[in-house]
Amino acid sequence: MKKVLIDCDPGIDDALAIALAHGDPNLDVVGITAVGGNVPLEFTTENALRLRDYYGMTAPVARGAGRPLVREGINAGNVHGVMGLGEVVLPETASELDPRHAVDLIIETLAAAPGEISLVATGPLTNIALAVRKEPRIVEWAAEFVIMGGAYSRGNRTPAAEFNIMADPEAAAVAFEAGWTTVMVGLDLTHQARANAEVRRRFEGLGRLESELLTPCLDFYGRFPDYQELGPAIHDACAIAYLIDPTLMDAVPARVDVETQGRFTSGMTVTDFKAETGNALVPTVLDQERFWDLMAEAFRVVAKAMG
Amino acid sequence: MKKVLIDCDPGIDDALAIALAHGDPNLDVVGITAVGGNVPLEFTTENALRLRDYYGMTAPVARGAGRPLVREGINAGNVHGVMGLGEVVLPETASELDPRHAVDLIIETLAAAPGEISLVATGPLTNIALAVRKEPRIVEWAAEFVIMGGAYSRGNRTPAAEFNIMADPEAAAVAFEAGWTTVMVGLDLTHQARANAEVRRRFEGLGRLESELLTPCLDFYGRFPDYQELGPAIHDACAIAYLIDPTLMDAVPARVDVETQGRFTSGMTVTDFKAETGNALVPTVLDQERFWDLMAEAFRVVAKAMG
Amino acid sequence: MKKVLIDCDPGIDDALAIALAHGDPNLDVVGITAVGGNVPLEFTTENALRLRDYYGMTAPVARGAGRPLVREGINAGNVHGVMGLGEVVLPETASELDPRHAVDLIIETLAAAPGEISLVATGPLTNIALAVRKEPRIVEWAAEFVIMGGAYSRGNRTPAAEFNIMADPEAAAVAFEAGWTTVMVGLDLTHQARANAEVRRRFEGLGRLESELLTPCLDFYGRFPDYQELGPAIHDACAIAYLIDPTLMDAVPARVDVETQGRFTSGMTVTDFKAETGNALVPTVLDQERFWDLMAEAFRVVAKAMG
Amino acid sequence: MKKVLIDCDPGIDDALAIALAHGDPNLDVVGITAVGGNVPLEFTTENALRLRDYYGMTAPVARGAGRPLVREGINAGNVHGVMGLGEVVLPETASELDPRHAVDLIIETLAAAPGEISLVATGPLTNIALAVRKEPRIVEWAAEFVIMGGAYSRGNRTPAAEFNIMADPEAAAVAFEAGWTTVMVGLDLTHQARANAEVRRRFEGLGRLESELLTPCLDFYGRFPDYQELGPAIHDACAIAYLIDPTLMDAVPARVDVETQGRFTSGMTVTDFKAETGNALVPTVLDQERFWDLMAEAFRVVAKAMG
Repeated sequence: MKKVLIDCDPGIDDALAIALAHGDPNLDVVGITAVGGNVPLEFTTENALRLRDYYGMTAPVARGAGRPLVREGINAGNVHGVMGLGEVVLPETASELDPRHAVDLIIETLAAAPGEISLVATGPLTNIALAVRKEPRIVEWAAEFVIMGGAYSRGNRTPAAEFNIMADPEAAAVAFEAGWTTVMVGLDLTHQARANAEVRRRFEGLGRLESELLTPCLDFYGRFPDYQELGPAIHDACAIAYLIDPTLMDAVPARVDVETQGRFTSGMTVTDFKAETGNALVPTVLDQERFWDLMAEAFRVVAKAMG
Repeated sequence: MKKVLIDCDPGIDDALAIALAHGDPNLDVVGITAVGGNVPLEFTTENALRLRDYYGMTAPVARGAGRPLVREGINAGNVHGVMGLGEVVLPETASELDPRHAVDLIIETLAAAPGEISLVATGPLTNIALAVRKEPRIVEWAAEFVIMGGAYSRGNRTPAAEFNIMADPEAAAVAFEAGWTTVMVGLDLTHQARANAEVRRRFEGLGRLESELLTPCLDFYGRFPDYQELGPAIHDACAIAYLIDPTLMDAVPARVDVETQGRFTSGMTVTDFKAETGNALVPTVLDQERFWDLMAEAFRVVAKAMG
Repeated sequence: MKKVLIDCDPGIDDALAIALAHGDPNLDVVGITAVGGNVPLEFTTENALRLRDYYGMTAPVARGAGRPLVREGINAGNVHGVMGLGEVVLPETASELDPRHAVDLIIETLAAAPGEISLVATGPLTNIALAVRKEPRIVEWAAEFVIMGGAYSRGNRTPAAEFNIMADPEAAAVAFEAGWTTVMVGLDLTHQARANAEVRRRFEGLGRLESELLTPCLDFYGRFPDYQELGPAIHDACAIAYLIDPTLMDAVPARVDVETQGRFTSGMTVTDFKAETGNALVPTVLDQERFWDLMAEAFRVVAKAMG
Repeated sequence: MKKVLIDCDPGIDDALAIALAHGDPNLDVVGITAVGGNVPLEFTTENALRLRDYYGMTAPVARGAGRPLVREGINAGNVHGVMGLGEVVLPETASELDPRHAVDLIIETLAAAPGEISLVATGPLTNIALAVRKEPRIVEWAAEFVIMGGAYSRGNRTPAAEFNIMADPEAAAVAFEAGWTTVMVGLDLTHQARANAEVRRRFEGLGRLESELLTPCLDFYGRFPDYQELGPAIHDACAIAYLIDPTLMDAVPARVDVETQGRFTSGMTVTDFKAETGNALVPTVLDQERFWDLMAEAFRVVAKAMG
């Protein structure tokens, strides 16, 4: 059973990624940290906390950075809704956040079990970069480091840049240059994970999970223009799926440099598959069949526990 | 019959592009200008002159800019050979260059027949940019402006940039922002034009053209590592093919911005297919069958005339 | 009596700045945090700790960031010696560092007394930027924020950039844009504070402080080529002097932007004295007479207590 | 007698620079080329032509580039008036421009007398850069190359950049890297050449030149806020003065790099006085007394000839 710490900015696909992580029998979520991204930090933090309780999880949830490492923030409220979960408002919770800052939760959690915990980030990499700078040893302590972010062909926020990287290019540069191997689950991979009508049918009969969360969220998400033709891409869940079973994806070693200086290319993950010394592993092809099998099964487990 | 002025840096695929332009019955080549690019200016100029004579053409040939608009030059001698045509050395010629600088040949040729001459560039855009700045009215005088250069997904010289644009990003920026519609025949299109074994068989029986030029050039070109699997991409000929018959390609309007400032992305043609106001037309899909039909027929005409 | 928290990278002039802060009757040093800068973090931290004990101070000392926020580190070992205090090696100490990271010491110290503590930084601004991002409210909690760094005419590390800003431009950008008014005590001011022969005579008769620290440090410092003509500039002490008595300097409101992107200008503090909305106060003229009076008196106090 | 070709963008101080060049017995103006800069090209060209006739000169005048090498143009109509000479409108002229483009006039003039003609530029360096790229040998043909432009401490258009360089940073980069030694007469020098009240008295009694041109132009120019305290700086005349008598100025060898990429520093002339290999000579101190003697005497000659 793999222990995983999830740094995220829920966000619709983050919400589904957390459900996957919780429902899958191979993962044990040991912490959730929130970062500003898809929507402002106050919403991503609240969403993380409520999702934790809603799914019946017990991992601590901590609030992290509200704005990027250096530059001004951007968000994706147009895709995820003003509060991040489309029009869904999860039940309020009396639970409290972990008193620690996300950066300290990350550092202390990894320090407590060096080599045992996988770190996955599905939002902008601000918390990760701050943690790396505050405690560089987390790079050795993390069992692996997987992100949803970037692309090796084209972006989504701009023609060159994917949203999570564009939202904090300097933090992404810090993360990619930290010394570990970053598994970059980027758009080229995640665009193969489309929750189209056929996929959606597999989520039927999941009770409250379906009616309260999956259906309204995916309906909302799917109305984003880019997603209307093929269905919404469930980006963040792909990063979790990689943790569960890396054989779901073909992955290629590469050198990834994050552009922080261009006029039109800021936030681009420039991916060199021919570089002599790499810093990343880049999944390129998704086994869609098995991916959705994983998702459907995990959702079933979560739904069942929710009653 | 469409009149065309070719600005180029021969270069193996330039050589084939010129043959296509000369052999095709729909084009009339009214001038050839050389620019430093694949190899240094002295070689591209000499190659242009010798190719003109070798193919039996009569258009004037002029020497242009030997280095990029602003930055230091690069070249692609590793792909095209030190002198630009692999190991082929064409017969010396007693012909003389046009006494004018390429920039003036371009300006004066277009000025003499406003709206009648198509301008095509298959090398770095230095001559074009200098001409635009010296005489901005060429933008109106050119009947159309087609380039081989750029890419909307990935580059070849770097992960982000295609060679011709990388070789002079500032000139490319000037060209794309000049006010005309640039037809960007980029790598995404030209990588569909592979002179593989099947294609090569169609060039058999072309006499001297085949034995002296096509075979040794394509053999040399095909040894470049990127070309070994699928065969060498005959980039520049695609731009000429567009002039001959734009229906050979599906093309999409776009806004193209040339990155001149990035650390890792300089020379990238950032292509926004959703921009409200475009400056480019970007061919995306090549009708390979008809493209090679055009090529084979044009080569046959050239070969026959060469005797 | 003004409470002050000093973030520094000792460094010869940092050492003198700390002596000034300790010896002056108007300041109460409530904490010292070290950052990598003039020399690597291990040395700046050890120097801070030993100086604290050597001077007979009681403030906690904490270790901070060992490398810049985003980019690779640089140092100034050529000016300050390999370990930071020329050839001086202070007595080892059995004292321990504060267990907290510098960032947390800064945050918690300021949080404990909002509006009461002045924050001064005499090294690269990495700790400050990390603290601002981890706890944005420190911007309101700090009574004032004074740095030694930058310049409004010319730099010292490069023609455009002063060392502390050049060492971490992104952190400096964060600090200047944090929302407080940054008092930028830069090179234009500090180059007026030269420890020349006449000044050095005022430090005579200070016992161990003179013989063990001032003399060897200033002799070493003064050998740096830029300092040979006019004497070494005691940069960091000027920032402390501003805290003690701002009337020592004429200061002008300005807008300061930190260049993070130039090819030749990275780390420059671009200072606009005509901007409509400022973010900085920039001392321009130093009352040298009174500055050295302050220094001499403070050193006398420290020396006397040291016995 | 030194032959000089003046590339300029008149502009009030250009007008005075041309008068100095014409009136001084040591210079022979062999050509005037106009570039867009202080005001648009149509006005700078017309002003150059009319000034030539107004002063009674015979040198050919040619029109050059109307916009910068790469980026969008800026102008300084707020300083020089909409048409460039404050509110002065010189008499219309029936004279015609040289039919050549400025770039060709520069190239052909220098080519005709290699090593004999000094090239001076008092506007943005677009024409110069285009000429260098079209005919690199002008770098050897020019006897010397002197510009008014740049600064080694602070700019005027922005805190970092002087107007002429800011107006076309890429062209300036080309000029400084062309291989000749650029004499950079920048703001640090020209701000010592103030046409204050005392100076203005020396221009009294100069008849039409005074009443029609000097007085209204300098009155207008002096109203620019930056010039109100010390009087307007007659920048461009300093470059001409250097040609006449370099001993008027102390000059220091330096390496000058033009920033083309910064967010806040674009157009800055980063001047390294300690570089091992220089590309520039930078006047730093002006002998004001002798400068104004030169000016007054030259104006007297011009005024006398004008009748």
